[in-house]
Amino acid sequence: MTLFGSEIVGRPLDEVDTPALVIDADAMERNIARMAAFFAERPAKLRPHAKTHKSPIIAHKQLEAGAVGITCAKLGEAEALVEGGIKDILIANQIVGPVKIARLVRLARHANLAVAVDDLDNARQISEAAVAAGSTVRVLVEVNVGMNRCGVEPGAPAVELAQRVASLPGLHFFGLQGYEGHLVGVPDRAERERRVREAMAPLIETRRMIEAAGIPVEVVSGGGTGTFDITSTIEGFDEVQAGSYVFMDAWYRQVEGPDTAFEPALFLWSTIVSRPAPDRAVGDIGLKTATPKHGLPTAFGIEGVETLSLSEEHVKLRVEGEARSLRPGDKIRFVPGHVCTTVNLHDCYVVVRGGIVEAVWPVAARGRAT
Amino acid sequence: MTLFGSEIVGRPLDEVDTPALVIDADAMERNIARMAAFFAERPAKLRPHAKTHKSPIIAHKQLEAGAVGITCAKLGEAEALVEGGIKDILIANQIVGPVKIARLVRLARHANLAVAVDDLDNARQISEAAVAAGSTVRVLVEVNVGMNRCGVEPGAPAVELAQRVASLPGLHFFGLQGYEGHLVGVPDRAERERRVREAMAPLIETRRMIEAAGIPVEVVSGGGTGTFDITSTIEGFDEVQAGSYVFMDAWYRQVEGPDTAFEPALFLWSTIVSRPAPDRAVGDIGLKTATPKHGLPTAFGIEGVETLSLSEEHVKLRVEGEARSLRPGDKIRFVPGHVCTTVNLHDCYVVVRGGIVEAVWPVAARGRAT
Repeated sequence: MTLFGSEIVGRPLDEVDTPALVIDADAMERNIARMAAFFAERPAKLRPHAKTHKSPIIAHKQLEAGAVGITCAKLGEAEALVEGGIKDILIANQIVGPVKIARLVRLARHANLAVAVDDLDNARQISEAAVAAGSTVRVLVEVNVGMNRCGVEPGAPAVELAQRVASLPGLHFFGLQGYEGHLVGVPDRAERERRVREAMAPLIETRRMIEAAGIPVEVVSGGGTGTFDITSTIEGFDEVQAGSYVFMDAWYRQVEGPDTAFEPALFLWSTIVSRPAPDRAVGDIGLKTATPKHGLPTAFGIEGVETLSLSEEHVKLRVEGEARSLRPGDKIRFVPGHVCTTVNLHDCYVVVRGGIVEAVWPVAARGRAT
Repeated sequence: MTLFGSEIVGRPLDEVDTPALVIDADAMERNIARMAAFFAERPAKLRPHAKTHKSPIIAHKQLEAGAVGITCAKLGEAEALVEGGIKDILIANQIVGPVKIARLVRLARHANLAVAVDDLDNARQISEAAVAAGSTVRVLVEVNVGMNRCGVEPGAPAVELAQRVASLPGLHFFGLQGYEGHLVGVPDRAERERRVREAMAPLIETRRMIEAAGIPVEVVSGGGTGTFDITSTIEGFDEVQAGSYVFMDAWYRQVEGPDTAFEPALFLWSTIVSRPAPDRAVGDIGLKTATPKHGLPTAFGIEGVETLSLSEEHVKLRVEGEARSLRPGDKIRFVPGHVCTTVNLHDCYVVVRGGIVEAVWPVAARGRAT
């Protein structure tokens, strides 16, 4: 259910009820342009991760700025993107089981899909279904680069799986994926760079082994907002799956430090609902509209407001100085601790430019978890 | 968007794709019956909290078993409940600002509503709007019982606000609310009981003061699944807002200990998507389908599976013994760490009895955060 209708378009944000998920359109467009400018000069390309925004219109803006395609996490997200006209999509996870595989190979009739694989049986099942459906699915063999989640080990196991994938009908061996999710948040920039280069070396070496076996590797893919400026400079690394940069969040700003090129573009718009004590205020966002992953939401554009805790429907705040004048009914903005999981809780974006509502966009792939 | 259609009704759960939010109908009905039996013999009554299930059909089952009304957290939840035919609803939070107050007083034309208030200006605004809309809203004055979130202090401040509320047209002073959210999880039962009684004493004393001032107090309300058997025995405490008991979760089972009357009735149905190492498996639930609040989801009905971590789209598992035979495509159940925040991530329930899908129910109030 969309909570906000088009009747708020053209109205001041101040009139919009809360909680609301608000995009600062100017800031988002600057973030997209900055990341595009970074990649314009490099051999590596950007394939932005749509798990962050779950929105075809934002994906189109990223493509218009130069991205080579879109990444997503779930088959249901890919369906929402295809429905929104996106044509080149990497589903950066395993698609497992007959129900999903049937959807995958049929969706591939409407867009150029790629999928991650780390199991031969799974690859065979996709192959058989693709042949039956008359479609082709590109496959990235996922390699474990030290995160120890999914992925075959680099070297011989990955080479063997790549060879088998390359031989299966209905599949197009596309390349390798290695996601350094355990390193995107390493606080020290130099240490982060050293560890990312170390983690990716076996992935690049695996690429060379596959190529030496006579199989072309079109794409080596991975990376995130915390490491895009590292992975993109590694020779043999082709595509970077950064997502959060488009909205930026409190956590990644902390990781990237004061020199980050990106600015907060996504806000939680909240009403103060209680002022029970001089130093205490309570707002109407909570665990059902924000997430504590990577830290609590932080007040934006107002001094003297400290977030103490999030419960299901409340944020408890300590207020000092000018903020003590806050009264029930006053509204303030928060920067989410982590944008991806926060967006997933909302049905729509209220898009604002210069304080005026410009659009209401659905979070089209929200809840598309299958 | 509902991810599951009625075509799965009558099919085995094994055929249902994942991730899915599954209700064990027999277990849920037993939980409802057990709680109803507990309250049948007591002066205090049950007003179950619908923030847990967000579903009118489940609320109706609780009412049919003897509950005196339904509690909810948000005005949007109340709207969804009224749309589902629920007639007596306590919104256990402050409803603040002209947009929401306009909805509140109009919704009150269709159901008997009550709302929590801790601010005189807010009470006045509701009063004026109710008069203009020709409706009446019952008001519980919220009292701080030590959680230090919302609520006026017990004693004189609460009595004064109650007197003012009682004098305002369009409002019906209904009583007091005190929520001991800081105590529902105290691990030791005896200490929990001692502290709850201590916290509630000033609330009950406030009740007596208001009554002594000549104002009837119909209801003193509060409590949760962790304390229902304590608050319900306090003289002067009338209604208990327990919610989680209907599904139970890993956290409350830990709080209540091995003697809990309630059993897990809500599950996350998940597929193993990767088996990259002998002791490691990865499932397809994650932070977008489960929440880490109160602990990670735990595997159910299978030995040797330990949950290590949840990332956005993955659960990482350590597998031992028989569980090492798990292969990609196999499905297992998890008990959520916390049911309320988990339900909020899903669009529908797959309702199962004896392993066969009996119904698909919408999570009607999901996303109704305003």
